[in-house]
Amino acid sequence: MKPTPNRTRQNDPEGLRTRVLDAAADLFQERGYHATSMKDLMQATGVSGGALHHHFPTKKSLALAVIADRVAPAVRRTWIDPIRAAPSLAKGITGVFAEIVSAVDARSRVAGCPLNNLALELVLSDPNFRSAIDAVFVEWQSALVERIAGTRGGARLDRAKRTDAAAFIISVYSGAMTLAKSKQNSLSLRSAASVLSHWLREREFAVELGA
Amino acid sequence: MKPTPNRTRQNDPEGLRTRVLDAAADLFQERGYHATSMKDLMQATGVSGGALHHHFPTKKSLALAVIADRVAPAVRRTWIDPIRAAPSLAKGITGVFAEIVSAVDARSRVAGCPLNNLALELVLSDPNFRSAIDAVFVEWQSALVERIAGTRGGARLDRAKRTDAAAFIISVYSGAMTLAKSKQNSLSLRSAASVLSHWLREREFAVELGA
Repeated sequence: MKPTPNRTRQNDPEGLRTRVLDAAADLFQERGYHATSMKDLMQATGVSGGALHHHFPTKKSLALAVIADRVAPAVRRTWIDPIRAAPSLAKGITGVFAEIVSAVDARSRVAGCPLNNLALELVLSDPNFRSAIDAVFVEWQSALVERIAGTRGGARLDRAKRTDAAAFIISVYSGAMTLAKSKQNSLSLRSAASVLSHWLREREFAVELGA
Repeated sequence: MKPTPNRTRQNDPEGLRTRVLDAAADLFQERGYHATSMKDLMQATGVSGGALHHHFPTKKSLALAVIADRVAPAVRRTWIDPIRAAPSLAKGITGVFAEIVSAVDARSRVAGCPLNNLALELVLSDPNFRSAIDAVFVEWQSALVERIAGTRGGARLDRAKRTDAAAFIISVYSGAMTLAKSKQNSLSLRSAASVLSHWLREREFAVELGA
């Protein structure tokens, strides 16, 4: 006997979890955490209240899973992995901004950076949200610090100064994305990319050690 | 006969409006728009549902009033007026960051920039929110463009490039404040101030025309 679609769902808890996390990540990104109800999620996914609560007993547990399993991987995919894989820090940053600008231009609306969106909405409301969000920022900053250390300008700096420089790069991007979302266009991201690339050259972060 | 406190309130619609706007601005800043209910506002202000609805028929009308009458003036007080009044653009920006860092350090928690907080939460949800928020960014950007035009480096640029430079300054601040809120400390703001001040010198935005 072939299982009915409903039985398939019941027999596929990982598939159900994936569907709920995908829908929650989308709705949090589009409307925000507080504006999304568990009922919205049931409607978006077709998952019953019982099954939803089985996987995520509270909305908070769902948000923590979204941060760990959707937002953190998005930051890795968009920023951390390309920065690590790039032939140089400068090319990495230029490439990341170019990808983000293309993605923004290809869409009719700018929803912004999922990490920033959740950060501003949630860090004050709960210490677990705050540490989950901060962990993503720390991972992002560490990847930048590592690449900064490998540049001529970065090699001259101590760890604190490299961390400052990494925080600056993240700040520029985060703020430009806030403006891009407010204005619903990519102008601030383009301008940030160009100023940042100038800044990297000027600080000798654009020259790799041994290059 | 002396009026009772309650009668005073009834006879003082402006006072009531002020109290509601103050409480709404605080709650939106602390928790966000969606996490604040009209009931929370009634409890925070002691204003009745009827009186609240008389002044603000919808939560949206209240948020638009908060943006126009609390958030925009806060941006003017913190950024626009000091930048206009400063002896130079560079001193203005250094002074603004120093004030913000002191304010952040003096408090036990970092609630962030009220404009950024509402921007990320609201711009996608409603075109009226978006234009109200964008108007504040435009005013802020214009004040910076005007001061940039009066510097040696800025005088060489066309209006588009000056606008880019202004957007960059706002981006750096906004992003640094997002990190400050996520980490609950002022480190990213200090680092942004120092890098920005270096950038202003490097672009000759730190030299006023005729100086």
